[in-house]
Amino acid sequence: MKHYTTLSDIENLEELIQEALQLKKENTASAAGKSKTLGMLFFNPSLRTRLSTEKAAKLLGMEVLVMNADKDGWALEFEDGAVMDSNKAEHIKEAAAVLSQYCDVIAVRAFPALEDKETDESEIVLNSFKKYASVPVINLESATGHPLQALTDAITISELKTSKRPKVVLTWAPHPKALPQSVPNSFVEVMRKMEVELVIANPEGYDLNPKITGDTPVIHNQEEALKNADFVYVKNWSSYEQYGKVLKTDREWTLTNEKLKPSNNAKVMHCLPVRRNVVIADEVLDGENSVVIRQAGNRTFAAQAVLKRILEN
Amino acid sequence: MKHYTTLSDIENLEELIQEALQLKKENTASAAGKSKTLGMLFFNPSLRTRLSTEKAAKLLGMEVLVMNADKDGWALEFEDGAVMDSNKAEHIKEAAAVLSQYCDVIAVRAFPALEDKETDESEIVLNSFKKYASVPVINLESATGHPLQALTDAITISELKTSKRPKVVLTWAPHPKALPQSVPNSFVEVMRKMEVELVIANPEGYDLNPKITGDTPVIHNQEEALKNADFVYVKNWSSYEQYGKVLKTDREWTLTNEKLKPSNNAKVMHCLPVRRNVVIADEVLDGENSVVIRQAGNRTFAAQAVLKRILEN
Amino acid sequence: MKHYTTLSDIENLEELIQEALQLKKENTASAAGKSKTLGMLFFNPSLRTRLSTEKAAKLLGMEVLVMNADKDGWALEFEDGAVMDSNKAEHIKEAAAVLSQYCDVIAVRAFPALEDKETDESEIVLNSFKKYASVPVINLESATGHPLQALTDAITISELKTSKRPKVVLTWAPHPKALPQSVPNSFVEVMRKMEVELVIANPEGYDLNPKITGDTPVIHNQEEALKNADFVYVKNWSSYEQYGKVLKTDREWTLTNEKLKPSNNAKVMHCLPVRRNVVIADEVLDGENSVVIRQAGNRTFAAQAVLKRILEN
Repeated sequence: MKHYTTLSDIENLEELIQEALQLKKENTASAAGKSKTLGMLFFNPSLRTRLSTEKAAKLLGMEVLVMNADKDGWALEFEDGAVMDSNKAEHIKEAAAVLSQYCDVIAVRAFPALEDKETDESEIVLNSFKKYASVPVINLESATGHPLQALTDAITISELKTSKRPKVVLTWAPHPKALPQSVPNSFVEVMRKMEVELVIANPEGYDLNPKITGDTPVIHNQEEALKNADFVYVKNWSSYEQYGKVLKTDREWTLTNEKLKPSNNAKVMHCLPVRRNVVIADEVLDGENSVVIRQAGNRTFAAQAVLKRILEN
Repeated sequence: MKHYTTLSDIENLEELIQEALQLKKENTASAAGKSKTLGMLFFNPSLRTRLSTEKAAKLLGMEVLVMNADKDGWALEFEDGAVMDSNKAEHIKEAAAVLSQYCDVIAVRAFPALEDKETDESEIVLNSFKKYASVPVINLESATGHPLQALTDAITISELKTSKRPKVVLTWAPHPKALPQSVPNSFVEVMRKMEVELVIANPEGYDLNPKITGDTPVIHNQEEALKNADFVYVKNWSSYEQYGKVLKTDREWTLTNEKLKPSNNAKVMHCLPVRRNVVIADEVLDGENSVVIRQAGNRTFAAQAVLKRILEN
Repeated sequence: MKHYTTLSDIENLEELIQEALQLKKENTASAAGKSKTLGMLFFNPSLRTRLSTEKAAKLLGMEVLVMNADKDGWALEFEDGAVMDSNKAEHIKEAAAVLSQYCDVIAVRAFPALEDKETDESEIVLNSFKKYASVPVINLESATGHPLQALTDAITISELKTSKRPKVVLTWAPHPKALPQSVPNSFVEVMRKMEVELVIANPEGYDLNPKITGDTPVIHNQEEALKNADFVYVKNWSSYEQYGKVLKTDREWTLTNEKLKPSNNAKVMHCLPVRRNVVIADEVLDGENSVVIRQAGNRTFAAQAVLKRILEN
């Protein structure tokens, strides 16, 4: 593995999942990353991703340098040929090249503005780092994808599945703010690489990018979709069709125990943080079906497996 | 020791003090915390506590993850059953459970709002972490207590006392801002576990919580209290009686050399930071009686002793 | 080496450069700083300096504590005898003495206000740390000097020079904001200790402090200065004569390939971050003459050599 910026960087998903589960079982420090430095660059806030990736790197013996570009006001210029006479103090060309000298791996988080589809899909921040850095780049959630979360999700389903080809339902849920499509995008991508029956449930107007969903069934009726589900992945996203808009905030799609009844006693997943009683009801999160804490715990091993592969390269 | 959130978590104070003094004498790194992670979560700023606890953890071979909840705007919901449709993005139930998977020990700082006594005394942040975390919790100063500081203070007095039962005076001093009662509360608690003659001196209106002071003499005359003192602990706090109010800002109670004359050449203590010439005069801080720097140095060994006990558990 | 706050702290520049180049060649971790702690205190933002110094310390096995005094609002009082009843919570006397107990080396960054020459030249922050700390102090860029950058620059020129006594031109360039003179000051100082032909080029009104430039030729004609140059160091600074003012923002002095023609195929240096097409044209930065990325990479080895010398002391 050279970079890990999209799911297509994974050569063999099943092998990577098994490696992560092995690392989880061992749960010990190693020296694979001795004298190596991971630089983590945040253009947006992060808690789980930061802590789990930092922990994973340290378990591998790596040093970690954290840069909060969002807070330190380190405004980068990304445009080629720009005359930099206003508020941007450094060009990505220098920034990426310099960081490549202090770091052996660079991990970057940069959210979408959700204002213009084309701009967000160009993935300017992530792709510029890939272009100008001379070391491997890891995506800590970009404008349109969150492959570390998706790998965690795949690990969690592998760990918990009780049938050869479980039914996995990704269901939209309400949220007061406009959220990116990066988590559902990457979840759909990773599920389409696994032996599962994937179904997407969302209200009309919330269909994800058809280039990503492909021939995955998209159902606008949550009740119907949840029937016989083995896993229910709950997540809000803003509209892709009316790009970045919030079209629906009522609680019709909030996940409750009642809605889980027709499922196959489904495991309930969410990437966290989750707004209780808006996205998922207390009774579900506090009940036997929720695996969200285990899922968050697996973040460490997903990051550790990816870092290990990159270091081995 | 399971948690260290109040002084009552200490099973044997004298033993713990001796352990800290032994660690100070050795002053070397060990591997007691190898492959273990301390997560430090700050809802309020911290300098001394952060640095000394981080240093203590690293001396034990632990990895340290620091989260600035105050700056990162990571607003937590603490209310049971809340419908999270406004500004709180994560519930303490998930936050504490997830952090417990990344960290082997969680340390939390959360100051009081000083607006409502009952709210502050409920210690909602600290107690919620104890309730929902599955790993030990350390108090880095909560609404009503600062047990790591108090242990430091006990270590410093043990180290410097020249008589079997020294007279220790806790005296209030002026300050322009309303400060919590956490430091004096914990100091009184720890002194009441030691073989000392404890006297509290404060202006009328500034008596501390009587449940904490118990039968400790409280004198409203600073001059009288300081007579024959072996240790003078200076500290400002806002009123407990007129909760959170600043009733007096003149310099009548500022500690000066003149005031120390009737003492037994007392050692002067303060938890720092100290406002010079408001709380304590330059002449005292720059003179022979001050032990505030040594006291701050002992913070490392107090934290190290506590972490070691928790790791051994 | 006791402290490293100015270039005069270097006993033997050539030896230190060779040590840094040796460290660069080895590029491995050592245990010279085992159980030692570097405290880095920032009163102003930092990216390159922070990362490279942190990396250098960790390569030496040191623990690193980073304090962002600028962001954490930790306002220090520096005045002797101050009555601290307003917004300053701690006096430098306590701050420096306490940090000296948690850290074996303290590194400080504190920029000038560029309002009053005498105030900036008093170097109150840096000198107060030297005065009140009981451990070595490193300058991470102060009001009037940046000796770690200057050492990097000397290393880079040593590494790349092809003649015994190369011609080195420091040329001013335009910039929209008022910048300190610290980088050019220290560059001039370090070049005057090396076997080079140093020439300074800047517009009228931009002459640096004559106490620093001494008998170095200062030419107000960029074209003339660049003739036969082996190295061109480009940097903006605000006026020293009309202290802190920006007198010229047009692009007459922007470095282009055209301007490099009369040079001896000069290597182009800059401390970064650099504003493209304002300070230096794209064609230069993207061309064969630029060594700015290598120069930034050398920051790590300059910091490592300095820390090693201080630890050996």
